[in-house]
Amino acid sequence: MDFERYFEDRLQDLKDEGNYRVFIDLERRRGEFPQAGQTDGETKREVKIWCSNDYLGMGQHPAVLEAMHDALDRSGAGAGGTRNISGTTHAHVLLEKELADLHGKEAALLFTSGYVSNWAAIGTLAAKIPGLIVFSDALNHASMIEGVRHSRAEKVIWKHNDVDDLRAKLAAAPANAPKMIAFESVYSMDGDIAPIKEICDIADEFGAMTYLDEVHAVGLYGPRGGGIAEREGLMDRLTVIEGTLGKAFGVVGGYIAASIALCDFVRSFASGFIFTTALPPAVAAGAAASVKHLKSSQAERDQQKERVAEVRARLDAIGIEHLANPSHIIPVMVGDPVKCKFISDTLLEEFGIYIQPINYPTVPKGTERLRITPSPVHSAEDIDHLVEALGSLWERCKIARGPIAAQ
Amino acid sequence: MDFERYFEDRLQDLKDEGNYRVFIDLERRRGEFPQAGQTDGETKREVKIWCSNDYLGMGQHPAVLEAMHDALDRSGAGAGGTRNISGTTHAHVLLEKELADLHGKEAALLFTSGYVSNWAAIGTLAAKIPGLIVFSDALNHASMIEGVRHSRAEKVIWKHNDVDDLRAKLAAAPANAPKMIAFESVYSMDGDIAPIKEICDIADEFGAMTYLDEVHAVGLYGPRGGGIAEREGLMDRLTVIEGTLGKAFGVVGGYIAASIALCDFVRSFASGFIFTTALPPAVAAGAAASVKHLKSSQAERDQQKERVAEVRARLDAIGIEHLANPSHIIPVMVGDPVKCKFISDTLLEEFGIYIQPINYPTVPKGTERLRITPSPVHSAEDIDHLVEALGSLWERCKIARGPIAAQ
Repeated sequence: MDFERYFEDRLQDLKDEGNYRVFIDLERRRGEFPQAGQTDGETKREVKIWCSNDYLGMGQHPAVLEAMHDALDRSGAGAGGTRNISGTTHAHVLLEKELADLHGKEAALLFTSGYVSNWAAIGTLAAKIPGLIVFSDALNHASMIEGVRHSRAEKVIWKHNDVDDLRAKLAAAPANAPKMIAFESVYSMDGDIAPIKEICDIADEFGAMTYLDEVHAVGLYGPRGGGIAEREGLMDRLTVIEGTLGKAFGVVGGYIAASIALCDFVRSFASGFIFTTALPPAVAAGAAASVKHLKSSQAERDQQKERVAEVRARLDAIGIEHLANPSHIIPVMVGDPVKCKFISDTLLEEFGIYIQPINYPTVPKGTERLRITPSPVHSAEDIDHLVEALGSLWERCKIARGPIAAQ
Repeated sequence: MDFERYFEDRLQDLKDEGNYRVFIDLERRRGEFPQAGQTDGETKREVKIWCSNDYLGMGQHPAVLEAMHDALDRSGAGAGGTRNISGTTHAHVLLEKELADLHGKEAALLFTSGYVSNWAAIGTLAAKIPGLIVFSDALNHASMIEGVRHSRAEKVIWKHNDVDDLRAKLAAAPANAPKMIAFESVYSMDGDIAPIKEICDIADEFGAMTYLDEVHAVGLYGPRGGGIAEREGLMDRLTVIEGTLGKAFGVVGGYIAASIALCDFVRSFASGFIFTTALPPAVAAGAAASVKHLKSSQAERDQQKERVAEVRARLDAIGIEHLANPSHIIPVMVGDPVKCKFISDTLLEEFGIYIQPINYPTVPKGTERLRITPSPVHSAEDIDHLVEALGSLWERCKIARGPIAAQ
């Protein structure tokens, strides 16, 4: 077989479909985010990033950076081993305590990423609990889907955020089979939020464990940044809360928070936890500083909410349609991969605005979109500039508009 | 189902078998490695780490730390997104160039860990190339095994490092089926090295692609630290070379180096690459500095070889048996999980020597061992202390000795 030829052909398919991804080469600058430099071959330009998951700008927060500098000076670069073989440092232990406390759980367990935390935790629970059936929301993230797939456990997909469908599917399963309901709080691409309380009620009814992915919510919602479940007073009703340190907390890494026994079980059996080098102590220290800061500071959350409301209102005022949702994510639907990429390219080249086109496989074909994530560090001028650029492009591309909201 | 009870019972099983893992809480200290602090409840002690995969002490190298501090100051903490959605920084681009160059390949692709690089790259190639059969060495790392498992591709396991068995198994497979041979250069737990040239010859004979994991070799072998394949002039014969930034390079992260088309294919289709936050720019910058340093500096490699030879000779001199192998890894076999843990605990508590017991599932039951990894930063006094401690414990525990080598 001509492997090279095969790879090239499949890449050409992606290009023909308009789904080939070109990474934007950025120079993030501490203190200037969302402003950044961009390199495109010989061209260098200044851009405003409007699609980052550094939702609160914590990636440049002095408390986070100071903790990372200090840990580098104190402990050096890497952890030097897996958690079991010389790679557990006190920074890891402290971070896990911080995270358990954040979610009101007995324990937490760190992973190298949010992806790995879902894949390894769900994969291990579903593979190791005999006969477990996973009831998985239809729009769950790839990492959860791959975790279930990897486990070989039986999977039942329920309609997205549809509690009636969930109940019907649980009722149809054998009563004595162990069950897990796996879902997210804030769905990344549509920005809608799960009915957590109703899902927990149903879980109780059927004796199912609940696994909630809060990666797009931790740091952002709840009085201490514990996520939607904290905001709604539901943390104690969830068996597992999974989160990330790489979005609102501004660093990298993932975790689960749960009972001591559950975390210890995953710690003891998850291949993706056991056989991998631990995160650098400086990463753990920076993440802990970020979590700690956002437990008490409301300023970032409040400012983000204002910016999000402002961008929404301004888009409404010029009839640029976006998905209504109760979160911080503003999806502006385009519905065509080529057009979506064209708009994104033009925003970048002509306006210095960087919003990555979101195409398949991240979203279903036909739902291609620009996903805008306003943050506390976007200024009033940044918003003016964004809205003017989008208005001008919508004009030029003859994109249908919705009703113009009253100013 | 009583989930908590189930978890507790399985953990009790591990404890009963002697396979329950207790993580050692370390305070790594920049500039003092392999010396570190250890916290054990109320007890604090000073320990020498003899089981780290920071093989060359690069985790505290000034060039690495300076690059990380600079990148923190310049770019902040996290990358803020997946590689596709605002998470590619110039530090990532430069690191991938550095790695491609290290292995003489057209391109390289970064992952969040070595585990993820194997899982995602093998998983994607094996799932996406129709009919691919993976010929997997019997002792391949968990991350490779899980990658094949995840792909659902047909897997044929060949006897460890046995080229006759490999040839026989390739010959028995359909001639027109696409094939991949997946193996490692240095096997972590036994320290033996694959016959790479013979395997490549066989691959050519059967038109198979070759996937070589060099995680325990990069930085350590070859004139520029390109691994065993570099040392033996074989890099161009391998389809994929996979490596880690978390062992000899002292930071964290993993990668593959291969053709442009192959890297682009994995970049475009691997869930575990696409849907995960990019490594922090400071991690990428630190890793690039480490790779660059070890491309020209031989001092660390030379000193490590001396220390390894010295420890081996001293163990031989007192009849403490260890697996013979041509690498830097010194496995001292104990063969019983409880005894192995007892020795490790006693080394720690009485001698301030930290060597994690290696038990199941990292190694097969009955082959429990101490895995010693001498580094350039272990001093002559450290070696004296280690050998005296082991001698004293072997005496106390009445462990059989081998022949005493002539001094």
